[in-house]
Amino acid sequence: MDYSGRLRRVQAAIENNRLDAFLVSHLPNVQYLCGFTGSAGVLLITATDKLLFTDGRYTLQAREQVHGAKVRIGKKSALVTSGEWLAGRKSLRRIGIEAANMTIASRATLAKSVGRKVLFVAAPPIVEPLRMIKDTEEVAKIRAACHLGAKLFDKLTTILKPGISESEAAGELEFAARKAGAEQMAFPTIIASGERSALPHGRASSAPIPARGFVVCDFGVILAGYCSDMTRTIHIGPCDTETRSGYEAVREAQQAAVDAVNPGVTVGEVDQAARKLLYNRKLGKFFTHSTGHGVGLEIHEAPRLAAREKEVLQPGMVITIEPGIYLPGKWGVRIEDTVVVTKTGCEVLTPCPKDLLTL
Amino acid sequence: MDYSGRLRRVQAAIENNRLDAFLVSHLPNVQYLCGFTGSAGVLLITATDKLLFTDGRYTLQAREQVHGAKVRIGKKSALVTSGEWLAGRKSLRRIGIEAANMTIASRATLAKSVGRKVLFVAAPPIVEPLRMIKDTEEVAKIRAACHLGAKLFDKLTTILKPGISESEAAGELEFAARKAGAEQMAFPTIIASGERSALPHGRASSAPIPARGFVVCDFGVILAGYCSDMTRTIHIGPCDTETRSGYEAVREAQQAAVDAVNPGVTVGEVDQAARKLLYNRKLGKFFTHSTGHGVGLEIHEAPRLAAREKEVLQPGMVITIEPGIYLPGKWGVRIEDTVVVTKTGCEVLTPCPKDLLTL
Repeated sequence: MDYSGRLRRVQAAIENNRLDAFLVSHLPNVQYLCGFTGSAGVLLITATDKLLFTDGRYTLQAREQVHGAKVRIGKKSALVTSGEWLAGRKSLRRIGIEAANMTIASRATLAKSVGRKVLFVAAPPIVEPLRMIKDTEEVAKIRAACHLGAKLFDKLTTILKPGISESEAAGELEFAARKAGAEQMAFPTIIASGERSALPHGRASSAPIPARGFVVCDFGVILAGYCSDMTRTIHIGPCDTETRSGYEAVREAQQAAVDAVNPGVTVGEVDQAARKLLYNRKLGKFFTHSTGHGVGLEIHEAPRLAAREKEVLQPGMVITIEPGIYLPGKWGVRIEDTVVVTKTGCEVLTPCPKDLLTL
Repeated sequence: MDYSGRLRRVQAAIENNRLDAFLVSHLPNVQYLCGFTGSAGVLLITATDKLLFTDGRYTLQAREQVHGAKVRIGKKSALVTSGEWLAGRKSLRRIGIEAANMTIASRATLAKSVGRKVLFVAAPPIVEPLRMIKDTEEVAKIRAACHLGAKLFDKLTTILKPGISESEAAGELEFAARKAGAEQMAFPTIIASGERSALPHGRASSAPIPARGFVVCDFGVILAGYCSDMTRTIHIGPCDTETRSGYEAVREAQQAAVDAVNPGVTVGEVDQAARKLLYNRKLGKFFTHSTGHGVGLEIHEAPRLAAREKEVLQPGMVITIEPGIYLPGKWGVRIEDTVVVTKTGCEVLTPCPKDLLTL
């Protein structure tokens, strides 16, 4: 990974924002900039210094992982240790902090440990815009994670049958993921069957898969640090005409949104492509969430694909396209791909068929 | 669960802190107070109103889960919807917020959506002190989760053998957890073998279990919403005298800390009991973390068992006792129980032998 290039771009942003220092406290940002994956650490960047502060639990790990920054091990929390370092550097007055991730209490703790008067500036997103555009190495990792996800879905179709619990099916899926090398799941696996398919976030429960009905399967793995994300909805038993036409509407809406992905298009336009199709089928009111989100080191990252959002798609962005409809007490359907924006459109990273699969 | 009692205690705290309203945004606190487990929601409590704000993805789920509060579904984020509700209630001027969990950016978003001048008060912890003392029903759930953990460890000892990867062993463990009804793991499973045992947070990796050396196994499940947490360190192959005496020192330090757990004792004294023993054996400098933490809806919650911390133990507190020593490049050992403070001492909830197990 090009840690030094990333750190240089952050230093340029620090200068542009007339900051004397920038304190990176959001852990995925810390990882992105210097490779450290510990659960406690902050990265302080100035025009001349790059310092990763952590505590004694991570001495070895930091030494192995950190690139482009010096490691400072403290006896107190990483935040306090960084504040105490800042205390002695009186020329550093305007300190940028990550307002989207730092809590109000952490700012107070930091201010106390610095001790002298400094100005904490709620910096605009500096690392997130960099992370939004994946480089070739990152796209390769996300592709590998998504391809693993697609294989796991094939396996899942051999597992799902009436009577076994959603949770057991999720367990089989997750075990297969582990055996294939996944570090962990990217989020709690959703296996939502029967009426539960109408819960957009229906985590696998003890409910048995019914003899007839939809099963929404939404899951992701973390492989070599990067997330995958995909959803397929299958049907157990025969599917009646009304239900099938609901499925087909989501399938077409999803395809319309995938087709809309092009450099220069706004994320709001992609959202609109899916939403418009469902509105025309009188199903718009059942589409109760946004169309997608960025995927990378985190399962949810920039950009957010929602109505009226203005972010412009660029090559290297990796996003999900996941419209769904949810009829409370009846059923729900969601179909989701992860795609990478290319110069001429997009590459679908989750190569699983989307025709209605009836088991 | 006694949601109405919990909400009443929060209302009393609101009055004591002379707040007109208290906005609960930390999701485990929301769950504790009204039962909602969705990934987006805030709970607003005033002297007369209790309102759970969420979005359209959670309409059904909120209706099923929420107790003691009215549900308001918004088209925007839960935070903005709650802010817009506050906008029209001009008598509510002093609004308590959870400074330990709310980000600087969220406060700004909230202020904007309220629109009129109000005072946001960084409230002292209000829900956390309540959560720290578990009621009988909660202790029963944590006990069940811990007993499941203990059973899983027994299974793990049949899996661990030279050559299989840490990650594969973790996968088997996690699959067994799922089959036994666990919703998910409480944190990324740690299986750290050989030199990796010296990493206090050594997540299971692709490294193979060596023919000889320690394997630190630290894992937890979430069962019916509550976490378990335990660590055992086993040895593969024969164990030399020096290594064994290191293990025995940790074992004795852990037992000394368990024995120190009594109502009226401070958490710092429990930490000191373990630390003193390791210092006397000249191993104190290798004990690089605190002795434990509270466990409940979250894997890490109050109190924190660290040097000089003053919190006084009370019956119903559930805490971990987990000293360890880490010799960089060589080996590490950690032994951890979860215990509940009783009127006369404590009950160990993780009933697994702690004598050195050699496989």
